[in-house]
Amino acid sequence: MVVDLNGFFKPSSVAVVGASRNPAKVGHVILKNLIDGGFKGMIFPINPEADNILGYRVHSSLVKVSENIDLAVIAVPAELVLETIDECKKKNIKNVLIITAGFGEVGNTALEQKLKAKLDSYEMKCVGVNCLGIFDAYHKFDTLFLPRYRLTRPKPGGISFICQSGAIGSAILDIASTSGYTFSKFVSYGNATQIDESDLLEYLGTDETTKVVCMYVEGIKNGEKFFETLKKVTAHKPVIVLKGGLTDAGKHATLSHTGALAGDSAVFFGILEQVNAIRANSLEEMFHIAALVEKGVKFKSNRLQIITNGGGYGILSTDAIASSKHVKLAILSQQTTAEIKKFAPTHMNIGNPLDLLGDATTERYKQALEACLKDSGIDGVLLIALYQTPLLTTEVVEVISEAHRNFQKPIVVISTGGEFTELLSRSLRERGLAVFSFPDEAITALDKLIAYQMRAPAKIKTVDKTVKMQKEKKVQKKTAGKKAKSVKKKKK
Amino acid sequence: MVVDLNGFFKPSSVAVVGASRNPAKVGHVILKNLIDGGFKGMIFPINPEADNILGYRVHSSLVKVSENIDLAVIAVPAELVLETIDECKKKNIKNVLIITAGFGEVGNTALEQKLKAKLDSYEMKCVGVNCLGIFDAYHKFDTLFLPRYRLTRPKPGGISFICQSGAIGSAILDIASTSGYTFSKFVSYGNATQIDESDLLEYLGTDETTKVVCMYVEGIKNGEKFFETLKKVTAHKPVIVLKGGLTDAGKHATLSHTGALAGDSAVFFGILEQVNAIRANSLEEMFHIAALVEKGVKFKSNRLQIITNGGGYGILSTDAIASSKHVKLAILSQQTTAEIKKFAPTHMNIGNPLDLLGDATTERYKQALEACLKDSGIDGVLLIALYQTPLLTTEVVEVISEAHRNFQKPIVVISTGGEFTELLSRSLRERGLAVFSFPDEAITALDKLIAYQMRAPAKIKTVDKTVKMQKEKKVQKKTAGKKAKSVKKKKK
Repeated sequence: MVVDLNGFFKPSSVAVVGASRNPAKVGHVILKNLIDGGFKGMIFPINPEADNILGYRVHSSLVKVSENIDLAVIAVPAELVLETIDECKKKNIKNVLIITAGFGEVGNTALEQKLKAKLDSYEMKCVGVNCLGIFDAYHKFDTLFLPRYRLTRPKPGGISFICQSGAIGSAILDIASTSGYTFSKFVSYGNATQIDESDLLEYLGTDETTKVVCMYVEGIKNGEKFFETLKKVTAHKPVIVLKGGLTDAGKHATLSHTGALAGDSAVFFGILEQVNAIRANSLEEMFHIAALVEKGVKFKSNRLQIITNGGGYGILSTDAIASSKHVKLAILSQQTTAEIKKFAPTHMNIGNPLDLLGDATTERYKQALEACLKDSGIDGVLLIALYQTPLLTTEVVEVISEAHRNFQKPIVVISTGGEFTELLSRSLRERGLAVFSFPDEAITALDKLIAYQMRAPAKIKTVDKTVKMQKEKKVQKKTAGKKAKSVKKKKK
Repeated sequence: MVVDLNGFFKPSSVAVVGASRNPAKVGHVILKNLIDGGFKGMIFPINPEADNILGYRVHSSLVKVSENIDLAVIAVPAELVLETIDECKKKNIKNVLIITAGFGEVGNTALEQKLKAKLDSYEMKCVGVNCLGIFDAYHKFDTLFLPRYRLTRPKPGGISFICQSGAIGSAILDIASTSGYTFSKFVSYGNATQIDESDLLEYLGTDETTKVVCMYVEGIKNGEKFFETLKKVTAHKPVIVLKGGLTDAGKHATLSHTGALAGDSAVFFGILEQVNAIRANSLEEMFHIAALVEKGVKFKSNRLQIITNGGGYGILSTDAIASSKHVKLAILSQQTTAEIKKFAPTHMNIGNPLDLLGDATTERYKQALEACLKDSGIDGVLLIALYQTPLLTTEVVEVISEAHRNFQKPIVVISTGGEFTELLSRSLRERGLAVFSFPDEAITALDKLIAYQMRAPAKIKTVDKTVKMQKEKKVQKKTAGKKAKSVKKKKK
């Protein structure tokens, strides 16, 4: 059953426990951003020693609030969290978001276990502890305790991001929104004391505004649950997973970060592939794949035609496609070749890549694009447009977006350049196109997305058996590892 | 002997043959950019049918110019190039830059061979044909026929770029200059009819303002000459090579682009490694490695300390370093650990990565940075600064650049974010620091640069034998390939 997390993303009323008058305090920044973000629900700052903060009436405790409270955002010191939870219980609050750090990640596992037991016994849902909180672009709900001038908030859109690490989440949110990418939901869940990555993933799987889920995870609380959930979600929307703690050194570092046990990476990646989740190798890559999905790039098959006005770019793209696992170079049909011949200058070579040459005009782009998109042997076009050459007028933006509207095939654009180029790229993004700066980043992202889109959900193996198998292998390996260690010790 | 190419990059007087009154013509744009670029030498437009173009007196032919001409830039149709060369001979011009296309790359090899023979018999030096020409930031010499509003020209600096493809060159020049990177020289040499990539490389190897040479090559005219030159240049400055035409499909495409035979990639890369040239796998990568060199990043050994205020970034960076070939994670000395303990909050974990935590102040960065840079077991610092958190004040820019000035060890900065972040990153770049957006791109670039810097020139094997060996292998392979093909044909 999907855990209902609406109370965390679209609450009607929110209490900020630990709201402060001091602008340097987390409890102040959360309250301020909630107000400045344009949240439409009721806001109740809680502080025993203040009457009024930022124009809002302050209550000395949760139980003093007469209205119903959907969610309590808790930003009090760690030692006060347990009693705050008791207060929440008294006020019959069902959802708590605990920002506070100082639990398992600093070795205080006893306190975290006590908290977990209390939450469970109260049947209370909890996101956190040790987290940055939640951002929902559609409901203008924003608990991120980072100033708005330092972290640009994105506009409403299709990307949702589940992020164990607060810093990664906020940095990506910031760069992505500045680059024009749009988001539905963002959640930093820290130690996953109770609600974990699987619950969040399952919820986002059912969320209509979420087109693609990005995840940064260090450790997985419950492997079987996670992979079952992934399998369910990837059947109808892509999930991109970036894993921290792949190497021994990285694993060691996760312990002091979110207290997570990073586990065996090979097993993890093996199962990711089985459940058709997309594995990202870096933040950049996650970001690029998500950008494709956000722009609705959808492939029925994998034959790509390159159109370019830069020969070298055509060659680098050809190399990247030929070296990729899942993208293929399309072969122009005789009819398309004949059609292109009609408008092509005599010295233009007709093939894939289709190099329209440095003197390519907007009209030549239009004719080439239409001829290729009509070809049933072509599933999509990789369109390289280098705007440095003067004959390519700014109207090419119209030409590309018209072709994008008229044909039901993806067009992915690559343009490298400075201000003039950025202007046109931004314009294309606003018209719904995915635009990249370099061939390799685009083709790496396409390779992974096409692999996902071409694997029908029916083809995915049952996960139960494989998870069990992998688990057994892992146990064997661990035992073997222990044996090796004890041998080593003896040698000493 | 190094071919003296000063006449191409810093001529005192230039003729533009084919200068035109029509702003749409290449001959007009070249003249205009030469003037607008602020070139200090004499400029002579040549056109039999005009008196005055852009305020410059026009001569009907080269021989009509009474002054000495260092360089003729030729932008006449292909069929007029030979007679223009005869004119150059009459005027005793030693250097010609032929922009004109329509030679070997469109199958007109006969014309290109005739041209080559003529150039050789006249003892004339020629860059081109089918190229974009030359840009020299120090001498404000600019023959690129692309409008300045579309292609931002970079400021004088340390990167030089040899690029067979004009489009790649211009796009990279544009994005790099907008991102704040600085250049010495840029040359697009097209078909390499006479002066080839090796001559250009050798010249840039001796050029004092060039700190790093970037090369995009499709085919190599003379392998032995190229690798000998590389060996000579890499002994004292890094050369980054990006190769187009790695795959069969890509190789096929190079033929119609610059008429180049792309050759065997495995052999090519093997020799690159032997002569300690840096192989880039993509345009992005070439760009990132060059950025490190431009900022003077120089490692004596390879032990890197990570300092971060984002735990997840620390973990991803640790994974990337542990997975790299040539970078190692430093181990903090007991003394450094003790020193950090003095200022670290109790819950801060002291190690590598050194996570200063989300509440890290500028002061904590200063103390950590100084403690690590003093440690003789640390060769450089990977400094992650995520500016989304409010306690990290803008003064951190001063702190980082002061540490950069005071210690003779590299600091490489990673910051991800929107406008606020970009502002601080730009400021750091201006103060001489290398700044990246993502951990992976930085560490991939560092891995390759450190590999180069740690290989002493003395260790490089003599190339003669190995080139010969590889050549023999290639011949064997080719013969084997031919045999396999003929077998296949027979089967059909």
